[in-house]
Amino acid sequence: MSSDTYISQLKTLLDDDSLLTDQESLNHYGKDWTNIKQPAPLAIALPKNTEQVQKIVLWANENQVAVVPSGGRTGLSGGAVAANGELVIALDKMNKITGFNAGSQQIHCQAGAITQQIQQYANEHELYYPVDFASSGSSQIGGNIATNAGGIKVIRYGLTRDWVQGLTVVTGKGDVLELNKGLIKNATGYDLRHLFIGSEGTLGIITEATLKLTRKPANLTVLLLAIPNLDCLMPILQRFQKSLSLTAFEFFSDEALEKVMAHHNLACPVEQRTPYYCLLEFDAHSEEIMNDALAEFENGLNDELILDGVMSQSQQQVEELWKYREFISETISGRKPYKNDISVTPEKITDFLTGVNNIVAQDYPDFEVIWFGHIGDGNLHLNILAPKNMPYEEFTQACEQVNPKIFGLLQEMGGSISAEHGVGILKKPYLSYTRSEQEIVYLKSIKQAFDPNGIMNPGKVID
Amino acid sequence: MSSDTYISQLKTLLDDDSLLTDQESLNHYGKDWTNIKQPAPLAIALPKNTEQVQKIVLWANENQVAVVPSGGRTGLSGGAVAANGELVIALDKMNKITGFNAGSQQIHCQAGAITQQIQQYANEHELYYPVDFASSGSSQIGGNIATNAGGIKVIRYGLTRDWVQGLTVVTGKGDVLELNKGLIKNATGYDLRHLFIGSEGTLGIITEATLKLTRKPANLTVLLLAIPNLDCLMPILQRFQKSLSLTAFEFFSDEALEKVMAHHNLACPVEQRTPYYCLLEFDAHSEEIMNDALAEFENGLNDELILDGVMSQSQQQVEELWKYREFISETISGRKPYKNDISVTPEKITDFLTGVNNIVAQDYPDFEVIWFGHIGDGNLHLNILAPKNMPYEEFTQACEQVNPKIFGLLQEMGGSISAEHGVGILKKPYLSYTRSEQEIVYLKSIKQAFDPNGIMNPGKVID
Repeated sequence: MSSDTYISQLKTLLDDDSLLTDQESLNHYGKDWTNIKQPAPLAIALPKNTEQVQKIVLWANENQVAVVPSGGRTGLSGGAVAANGELVIALDKMNKITGFNAGSQQIHCQAGAITQQIQQYANEHELYYPVDFASSGSSQIGGNIATNAGGIKVIRYGLTRDWVQGLTVVTGKGDVLELNKGLIKNATGYDLRHLFIGSEGTLGIITEATLKLTRKPANLTVLLLAIPNLDCLMPILQRFQKSLSLTAFEFFSDEALEKVMAHHNLACPVEQRTPYYCLLEFDAHSEEIMNDALAEFENGLNDELILDGVMSQSQQQVEELWKYREFISETISGRKPYKNDISVTPEKITDFLTGVNNIVAQDYPDFEVIWFGHIGDGNLHLNILAPKNMPYEEFTQACEQVNPKIFGLLQEMGGSISAEHGVGILKKPYLSYTRSEQEIVYLKSIKQAFDPNGIMNPGKVID
Repeated sequence: MSSDTYISQLKTLLDDDSLLTDQESLNHYGKDWTNIKQPAPLAIALPKNTEQVQKIVLWANENQVAVVPSGGRTGLSGGAVAANGELVIALDKMNKITGFNAGSQQIHCQAGAITQQIQQYANEHELYYPVDFASSGSSQIGGNIATNAGGIKVIRYGLTRDWVQGLTVVTGKGDVLELNKGLIKNATGYDLRHLFIGSEGTLGIITEATLKLTRKPANLTVLLLAIPNLDCLMPILQRFQKSLSLTAFEFFSDEALEKVMAHHNLACPVEQRTPYYCLLEFDAHSEEIMNDALAEFENGLNDELILDGVMSQSQQQVEELWKYREFISETISGRKPYKNDISVTPEKITDFLTGVNNIVAQDYPDFEVIWFGHIGDGNLHLNILAPKNMPYEEFTQACEQVNPKIFGLLQEMGGSISAEHGVGILKKPYLSYTRSEQEIVYLKSIKQAFDPNGIMNPGKVID
């Protein structure tokens, strides 16, 4: 059948003005933050409810048309890229908060609701949705769930997975399933909800979600510490964790700090520049806790684990100090960094950082390397910047040649080639460094069960 | 092949004295706490490591012998019953804690480790494993994971699922998979770990686990409240939840209290007996929190939501007060109660309790009904006691006739026919009240992928 026939059929399944085919829309909806492929979708469908999503997926099965689910397209692995004539199903019109119950601390929403919208709604009701990251102003809840988004509060609050109590999905076959229905306790067979969380649109489309909320943290306080080397990170984490219940434990390199200060015209937060910094956050709901934090800080100075530091004295200062960490990604985005988002268990982090450091020193001698990450979770963001005169393709090829070394080290240490960005297109060739060949056979069987015609996000995660 | 041939072959796969075939062992290992079927296993295998489990499962596939994984056999749905010549694989010899890291707050153990052993080990290292329930002295971690065990601290700490960071499993096909490897963050395709959690031994055997630990709660305090009716429960929960971070919110009926007091020779904890009681626990780490709790208690008294109450003043009193709730199950076990372990979302709990109350009043007029449960999680344990002169079979049949009414109400309200006990044999006929027919098709596909020969725990959960 021709594209025109497809388009006219699709229009009958949607409301007026809900199928976009103009070039601007195709470009806009066909890519994510990776910008790695030329967008070339067939069309963009904007369904308004689960029923319309189901109709489109059933149609796609009949016509063997590939479907790419599309949220806020803030992904960094190409999971939402449509470059091969796929039909993009964008959830933009399904952005409503459809239920809230203060007693059960639950919120129900359509999958196109923006992360920040959920956070603000919770806040207005004296509650808290704790999954937070740089893209929360544009990322959609459905996309967060499909990638099991993590971010900066994982050490206390876990990942998106931990906040999803119910999902409505349209499977690749076109079945509508209501998974777990918002229940806290439900021991009735395999929990399909958890299969869809992190499935990157390859099993079906998440259309609605029930999320758990929690109590607001009280009096968040930030400590920004200047440290002499990477070996200090884990001892600092362990010391502070003993007396404090940390809500964040982040780190970044001096190169990262330098770039953020220059780009955003910010003053240096500490008096003494050091090779690395770490940022701790905790809720200081009593004076005792503040005293504990200060005592650990003093101990760290005495033992030369910490060389300098600053502690927030107000909510405004909390926000100011977070900028040095939160602005990194956006600051370097103009340089199109080659990103590795990798993790090991926290106990191995020191050995792992040493190993990566050696590889980087040996293999990227001419490239700028920006280190940062959610190091309390064992998660390192390693960003490589191209020299200004190097063609981008040559640069990425050079980076890709180093991948097997870094991923080989990860494999040896039982780590992950993608801690939170997902596999998408970019990490697909490397999946077997983290998942065994036998595991991948099971992944494929599951894909087959939910999407027997292979229409859901083909070419992503697994073949 | 004959049983004798099987036995002699199996012996070659195990260490000496690790295959039991005496009648006492067959009886002991062939049943769980349900006592519903006459045990009749082929033999009991006691492997010492994952490799031996794999050998046995590969052998079972070759010989089409059904396998029943066996933990502490404290289950209440018949998930570990072996009544049809199955080979029981008991994890009793795989009970070691094999790794611990204070920095990453993780413990690694074999699946046969006892829950209490993990709790004590954590405690000795100034950490906390929060999943706790009446059977923690004999239940094994592998069984907890296979049923996603819940218990009394779910409102704060979640279910077993929330504490599992890695699993080693032998699938029904005989593959050894290392799932998630203890990583906090790992976005590399479908998380098979979460499929095995709650799979009740139907996909394979869990042989090792990495569990997360957390900081110990400080100064736990218990409030036991006497309340006039079920309608008061949710308002009380909501009021206390606003100012306190609850670690438990339980309820029980006066009939339950009466039985516990008589059986354990305990004094009444409150001056005024009321139809129902609820038990709140919270960590009172500051005087402010204690004052908030007392203020809410006073408010409740003024508004007649609460008629009487007692607050613990010491750790010993915390334990004393918990007895009134924790001893219920064991107290009535001699009466072989017919158990329904059911749940709805917390917001629906008042309507649900009213509905169940009506059904019970109408359909069980001659039976004693003992109400208790983790009501803050929406989870009700409804225990029906047989009149002393009624034959047990007649009694269970009478109870089963009422099930469709209770489960029908649950279906209407989007609830679960098994909140935490699992499906096993007992709830299998009712699975479609909670999972749709379409969902069950997917469950079966998943079973087929992991256990194509159908040797793993046949007759449990799904066919």
